[in-house]
Amino acid sequence: MRPQKYACKIAYDGTKYAGYQIQSNAGSIQGELERVLEQMHDYRIRIFGSGRTDAGVHAREQVIHFTSQLNIPEKQWIKALNAQLPLDIRVWEVYRVPNDFHARYDVTQKEYRYYIDRQKVCDPQRRLYAYHIPYHLAIDNMQKAAEILVGKHDFSAFSSPKSTVDDCVRTLYGLDVQDEQNMLVIACRGDGFLYNMVRIIVGTLIEVGNGKKSVEEIPAIISKKDRYYAGPTVPAHGLCLWKVTYPISLE
Amino acid sequence: MRPQKYACKIAYDGTKYAGYQIQSNAGSIQGELERVLEQMHDYRIRIFGSGRTDAGVHAREQVIHFTSQLNIPEKQWIKALNAQLPLDIRVWEVYRVPNDFHARYDVTQKEYRYYIDRQKVCDPQRRLYAYHIPYHLAIDNMQKAAEILVGKHDFSAFSSPKSTVDDCVRTLYGLDVQDEQNMLVIACRGDGFLYNMVRIIVGTLIEVGNGKKSVEEIPAIISKKDRYYAGPTVPAHGLCLWKVTYPISLE
Repeated sequence: MRPQKYACKIAYDGTKYAGYQIQSNAGSIQGELERVLEQMHDYRIRIFGSGRTDAGVHAREQVIHFTSQLNIPEKQWIKALNAQLPLDIRVWEVYRVPNDFHARYDVTQKEYRYYIDRQKVCDPQRRLYAYHIPYHLAIDNMQKAAEILVGKHDFSAFSSPKSTVDDCVRTLYGLDVQDEQNMLVIACRGDGFLYNMVRIIVGTLIEVGNGKKSVEEIPAIISKKDRYYAGPTVPAHGLCLWKVTYPISLE
Repeated sequence: MRPQKYACKIAYDGTKYAGYQIQSNAGSIQGELERVLEQMHDYRIRIFGSGRTDAGVHAREQVIHFTSQLNIPEKQWIKALNAQLPLDIRVWEVYRVPNDFHARYDVTQKEYRYYIDRQKVCDPQRRLYAYHIPYHLAIDNMQKAAEILVGKHDFSAFSSPKSTVDDCVRTLYGLDVQDEQNMLVIACRGDGFLYNMVRIIVGTLIEVGNGKKSVEEIPAIISKKDRYYAGPTVPAHGLCLWKVTYPISLE
């Protein structure tokens, strides 16, 4: 049979994993998926994700692709993979895609959401999925700062020094700060993100919210292109990869 | 100093615990709280809860009381206890209460909520807090069956055979089946509950929802007073102790 390329939408609770990417000494999302695919094929099947997520980061809709010689209908793929995967990793959809599809190189937009639990005491059921900030945050100022960050900028100031990328110009399509019931949700859409970029953006917005930084400082923080001037990198567990978009519709 | 009685509202994620009640060979909610109180007092302080919750059952608002000689303001109690407790147990409120208050004997109403994740694939972030049922449920029939269960009945049929209680008459004030976004929430309010009663009620409603039982069978299931005729005991992890009410207002 001719090999077929498949794309999968997967969700995971990143709490127990050292991150998306396979590692020799720790559990990973990629490692679990490749282990299950190897069981099914009797040889290694490599998977390609839309991008890495760090240790502790969650995903509602990560996209991966792989190529297989097995002739299995999409619904059966979902059942077969979920039957062997741990419960904190779930396959939601499997699609047959053209051979030139690539989960990483074809991405046109990504959305991340960051959750902040604003209740005075941390909700035990949300403790692994939201960063607990019990003190006052000026949401209106955070929203004004977010508007300034939207657009095409060199985001060097919002990138981990560990990053090895040369071109730090990215376009933020949207950065929405929404105060839901007891929970602040920061939704961040863009054409791509530098290493730790979302977590540094959120850390900067929090410093605007608590008054350590002013809205007026944001343009200078961007233009200085220096990590030193932006806010801290907030904890990984509040972050969730929400959606990945491609030129072809995965629906 | 004269001893003072305190009541606390606590929340917990029951996943890791063998239940509310202290046990010699496994972690418990009571055990964690008494360990922290003993650290503060240098002698054992016994706590009394509104009732036990089983292994894996969660609480949004469990109420406990204890008596202490320490003269600490309520807000400082919250901080001191939370500083020593694991993150999956949180103290939300501490109140000074009259010496004759009893967290168990004074209860006038309890509310439990049971969560059912109805999405086709289990949500990894809700897997520890909701029972996953991907097949069709006739919600309208479940609601009709729930209405029949409301009121004062002998609930022997909905009690674990392990129960040692003589009087199985309880009053259900409300049993609401609400279809929220992707999640079915069954809220159960009553003057008291027999062992496993909420989980057997939910198991019976699910069998009405999937057609194994009809709405018309419910009165006979109640009147036979035999555990055999009710539905199965659903898993603990979907259950959450939502609220406990007393004659005095804990606000």
